[in-house]
Amino acid sequence: MVSDSELKYWIGLSGIPGIGRVRISQLKEFFGSLEDAWKAPEGKLKQAGLDSRTVDALVALRPRICLDAEMEKLERYKIKALICEDSSYPSRLKQIYDYPPVLYVRGSLPGEDVPCLAIVGTRRPTIYGRQVTEEIVTDLARAGVVIVSGLARGIDSVAHRAALEAGGKTVAVFASGLDIVYPGENAKLAQAIMEQGALVSEFPLGTKPKPENFPLRNRIMSGLSLGVLVVEAGERSGALITAHQALEQNREVFAIPGSILSPASQGTNRLIQEGAKLVRNYVDILQELNLNIVAEQAQLEETSSTEKAKAGSAAESAILKHLSSEPIHIDEICRSTGLPMPGVSSALAMLELKGMVKQVGKMNFVLARRGQAYSESGKS
Amino acid sequence: MVSDSELKYWIGLSGIPGIGRVRISQLKEFFGSLEDAWKAPEGKLKQAGLDSRTVDALVALRPRICLDAEMEKLERYKIKALICEDSSYPSRLKQIYDYPPVLYVRGSLPGEDVPCLAIVGTRRPTIYGRQVTEEIVTDLARAGVVIVSGLARGIDSVAHRAALEAGGKTVAVFASGLDIVYPGENAKLAQAIMEQGALVSEFPLGTKPKPENFPLRNRIMSGLSLGVLVVEAGERSGALITAHQALEQNREVFAIPGSILSPASQGTNRLIQEGAKLVRNYVDILQELNLNIVAEQAQLEETSSTEKAKAGSAAESAILKHLSSEPIHIDEICRSTGLPMPGVSSALAMLELKGMVKQVGKMNFVLARRGQAYSESGKS
Repeated sequence: MVSDSELKYWIGLSGIPGIGRVRISQLKEFFGSLEDAWKAPEGKLKQAGLDSRTVDALVALRPRICLDAEMEKLERYKIKALICEDSSYPSRLKQIYDYPPVLYVRGSLPGEDVPCLAIVGTRRPTIYGRQVTEEIVTDLARAGVVIVSGLARGIDSVAHRAALEAGGKTVAVFASGLDIVYPGENAKLAQAIMEQGALVSEFPLGTKPKPENFPLRNRIMSGLSLGVLVVEAGERSGALITAHQALEQNREVFAIPGSILSPASQGTNRLIQEGAKLVRNYVDILQELNLNIVAEQAQLEETSSTEKAKAGSAAESAILKHLSSEPIHIDEICRSTGLPMPGVSSALAMLELKGMVKQVGKMNFVLARRGQAYSESGKS
Repeated sequence: MVSDSELKYWIGLSGIPGIGRVRISQLKEFFGSLEDAWKAPEGKLKQAGLDSRTVDALVALRPRICLDAEMEKLERYKIKALICEDSSYPSRLKQIYDYPPVLYVRGSLPGEDVPCLAIVGTRRPTIYGRQVTEEIVTDLARAGVVIVSGLARGIDSVAHRAALEAGGKTVAVFASGLDIVYPGENAKLAQAIMEQGALVSEFPLGTKPKPENFPLRNRIMSGLSLGVLVVEAGERSGALITAHQALEQNREVFAIPGSILSPASQGTNRLIQEGAKLVRNYVDILQELNLNIVAEQAQLEETSSTEKAKAGSAAESAILKHLSSEPIHIDEICRSTGLPMPGVSSALAMLELKGMVKQVGKMNFVLARRGQAYSESGKS
């Protein structure tokens, strides 16, 4: 565990352009402590192996940075600074090549075992993009998946909002310091995200959202996640950069297909051509990430016994016993229940009306996870 | 070459349920000639290795079939019967496991070297499905690809019509005898296809379009083609059966992605999940089938020198020289022409307005193949 007195030098050094986690290790080894490194004369810094450009930056900036004031500001904003050497630093993020030495967090990050999915897309989504984002995020959030995004206009905002509305957790990764919300119109959204999840950044307080920060921010989004879902993206969308970064990070890349006549689906369709997994619904994502267990658990919780009791006919109860989160075809239901097709068909229709069963694709059925039982567990 | 006198026994025997090309070979070897097989007593037929059900069918049907009348009828309808042992039988079709012994053809089949693509899809397409079929078929037909389909309502009809209107060739494979057009509303379309391509069937004259004939018909469609493109298909569409048959036949399977909220795209999106190639435009298909040469040739013919001369500014001519059927990004055009982005951008816009350049995807450009030059070569 990094001590508070050491922490401030992590913060100071990591804020100097050119100094990342490799350089910090190097300095620590050479000087014995980061405090000594922070205060070292120019010549010593060069001796430690820093290039002259980085030395110049450090020498120029350090007199202007008051580390104690920085620490106070973090405390005032209730921002935790997680150091990559600490156990509180997200271990999934440490799998990527260039994880940041310090991660600033406002709110609370999900536990290590909680699956996170990054959702990215165009800032100018179509009605289709919005609708699909809302539906899939709602389903994923209810299945216990944390939605990571970038607080940008468009898909990002829709994703964060849908996660919040579904009672799920969501994480927004900033391309600026956590004291600067960008775009400003999302200040209220950022507040809600902080209360129900976390705001995250690798940039020191006061950092403006410069264009070059966005690709860096995106690598954190995918780095925190098991995979990245691209909902809508034009041919040159930044979301495609995120997708390629995610592939390099060995993360799954998912994409929603769309009309070949829609410019907003050109990028996603191309991603699929290049090997991204085509996603038709949230189950596709859970399965690909081997999160069936999450889905099953969510359903077990939600399809409570009281809900099962709502089933009317014997046929309906018999069918319910054979349903799970795995889609089952109606023919298979007939076989396994031994009931005739017309009976199964009308019982399924009744169960769908009651909201207990959901048809996924034509004639394939799963247990629905949105009933009274859900909203109860949502409150708890 | 099968003689006319032998031909009629091929036609007679292949029309008996249970007798395919393997049985015909067997009978020929046993009896020495198919005439002897056709006329053989029951006991001999069993000795030749036919099962009793097939023997019963042959013995029951042959007195009711007048082979000379059949031959006359074929002549009257101007139908050629191609025997699988003849050189006129399509060699691509012979690559499939269960090619039919006799193929009935009205009109003229494309030459052996001409690329064919089967296009299938729902009988109830959306506006999107119709539009995409029209666009892609027009492009493919103009690039010299023959469109094979099944004359059904919906995607099939749209595909045939678009091919005809583009001045291309098209082949309709029947699930009935060639004397029975199904659906009847497509009689005029069938006539036009015959004149500009061919009607094809493995079923003897008089065969009705029974449900069990459709999957058989579909294997001929894919068998004649290098690949199958599924445009729109619901979750349980017959087009999916065709796609799976095509895979078994080692043909490429292509699918057009669509909205995950559109039932008519559920089947195509699933096909892509299962490994079908996602298609964004006709170039994707030509490339996958290694038909770049076809596309290039088509363009060379069509973008004639007179068309090039229509180009106004020096920038436009310079850009035209760097364009081909391969999409080139605008950045690349700037690099290769040495012209500044604003100049290239406005020249491309002008060339697009003139119909000489086409934007495929955002900021990627190809030579357009639809100008005066095309309609000229279309007439020749």
